[in-house]
Amino acid sequence: MKIYCAIKLGENEKVYLKRIVDPERIQFRDELKKEDRHSAFMNADICFGNVRPEWLEETTKLKWIQLQSVGFGVYQNLRPKVEFKMTHLKNFFGVPVAETALAGILTLYRGTDQCVRDQEKRQWQGIKMRPGLRLVSGKKVMIVGGGSIGQHLKKCLEGFGAETTIYGRRPVNSDIQSPEALDKRLSQMDIIVSSLPGTSETIHFFDRRRLELFKKDALFVNVGRGSAVEEEVLIERLNNRDLWGAVLDVTREEPLPEDHPLYECPNTLLTQHTAGGYQDEILDIVKVFVGNLDRFEKGQELEHLVNLGRGY
Amino acid sequence: MKIYCAIKLGENEKVYLKRIVDPERIQFRDELKKEDRHSAFMNADICFGNVRPEWLEETTKLKWIQLQSVGFGVYQNLRPKVEFKMTHLKNFFGVPVAETALAGILTLYRGTDQCVRDQEKRQWQGIKMRPGLRLVSGKKVMIVGGGSIGQHLKKCLEGFGAETTIYGRRPVNSDIQSPEALDKRLSQMDIIVSSLPGTSETIHFFDRRRLELFKKDALFVNVGRGSAVEEEVLIERLNNRDLWGAVLDVTREEPLPEDHPLYECPNTLLTQHTAGGYQDEILDIVKVFVGNLDRFEKGQELEHLVNLGRGY
Repeated sequence: MKIYCAIKLGENEKVYLKRIVDPERIQFRDELKKEDRHSAFMNADICFGNVRPEWLEETTKLKWIQLQSVGFGVYQNLRPKVEFKMTHLKNFFGVPVAETALAGILTLYRGTDQCVRDQEKRQWQGIKMRPGLRLVSGKKVMIVGGGSIGQHLKKCLEGFGAETTIYGRRPVNSDIQSPEALDKRLSQMDIIVSSLPGTSETIHFFDRRRLELFKKDALFVNVGRGSAVEEEVLIERLNNRDLWGAVLDVTREEPLPEDHPLYECPNTLLTQHTAGGYQDEILDIVKVFVGNLDRFEKGQELEHLVNLGRGY
Repeated sequence: MKIYCAIKLGENEKVYLKRIVDPERIQFRDELKKEDRHSAFMNADICFGNVRPEWLEETTKLKWIQLQSVGFGVYQNLRPKVEFKMTHLKNFFGVPVAETALAGILTLYRGTDQCVRDQEKRQWQGIKMRPGLRLVSGKKVMIVGGGSIGQHLKKCLEGFGAETTIYGRRPVNSDIQSPEALDKRLSQMDIIVSSLPGTSETIHFFDRRRLELFKKDALFVNVGRGSAVEEEVLIERLNNRDLWGAVLDVTREEPLPEDHPLYECPNTLLTQHTAGGYQDEILDIVKVFVGNLDRFEKGQELEHLVNLGRGY
């Protein structure tokens, strides 16, 4: 069965893949002329990586697509000609994203952002900085979203001696499940982390009303999707010092345009949607594909099949 | 009994202290004229905060001094006229220093240093940064020093899924105790953290021979004392890319002079000896003093008595 590889692989990853899968079977997007890509996809039984939604409506051969993302919102309202399976990278980014959330929190709490700026100017503030520094230890943290990011983040934070609560939908992986219980607790939280996916249900989950529940001293962290936050209100509260700070891996617009006010909000760190990244990210995605390919060829159930109705 | 308060307190801390201790008994250094400080100290039975070593040789009244530091190396070779007790802040800085060590590691590993620099220029690199990012998860970390910093750091790192080893002197709080065992493991370590105190025994503990055992990809973290490292060799190895990076809270010279080469070493973060600091640092030091004062007045044993022979 033919494979169309839509994900951009480096040399190492290609070598790895070709050692396991007969190279004759694979066509790599980046090795094809632009005009040949669509027909290569149309001839494939298997697609590795994300393609344009329209293509999935046109294919008559596809049996399975392994996405290179967790989110699959763009594929939700398709009307394909044939039935195919779709798998995504569920849980794949839990560890790196949680680490970036922690990196962001600690950068602002322990002042390494100021240290970086000082270092650029060969400047040393030293002891003057100490009374402004914060500790994660003993802090109350609300994690909104019970998925793999939230779970790993909770484990990390507990090592620091923070007190964490997870708000989620399922009791099996969250401490509270009702929006009322969440809202009641928000005003006591030192740190609020959103790991909400970008679905129609999460749009403006953090709207004005909810953002106004945060205490003035709170830090807001968004490693989910930018659409979950009423961004104008967030900016207003940061600039008016009604909110202490923010770590934003995601924003409504990405990349953030040069003149965007978020670049200059106080105590705000923009991690540029890099939270999922790490040195072996692409190689590990190839390994997920290879694992599922083996299952596919043996007729076994694939891992992390998408439930298109749910949106994440 | 009269108290000389040598530590600089803010208004809040003074109010707190005066609520517990009769203000008539306390003289605050910063409320005295320079020329009156020495005699105020000479009249005191109790000293709260660090004073010049000579003063401790001159006093004939002092019964107890509560230091505002963990280190007491400067007081080691005194010949006082009278016998007095000395207590220090043992374990006090374990949590904040461990948090800054983690902040430094994550800042470099997750690229928030680059994000801060980009943000200053309203620049967005995004996806390009991802292959350069590192994960703490799964990494091998050697913590040199089994004290409170090392213990808390180990707990934090284990939440991340790192594999930590503590090198120390006592089996009760370390995994390995012999320098040979340490040296044998150094080449396998992704991160090496020094929390060694500044004593005559630790000078250049990380000398050329030992620094050359680190792998090229390693990150070195120093939250102990600058004197434990042969700094020229560290700089040389960073600049020659024989060492991936460094987080230095301490350096041989502090503040670091403007023309110091460390300001521009690759993947190097200078946290300016702020690691012990946090918002309630001084208030919490007052609380340590107040606790010991209560014990002192009841004739109970003081907490964290200094063993002047050991130097930390």
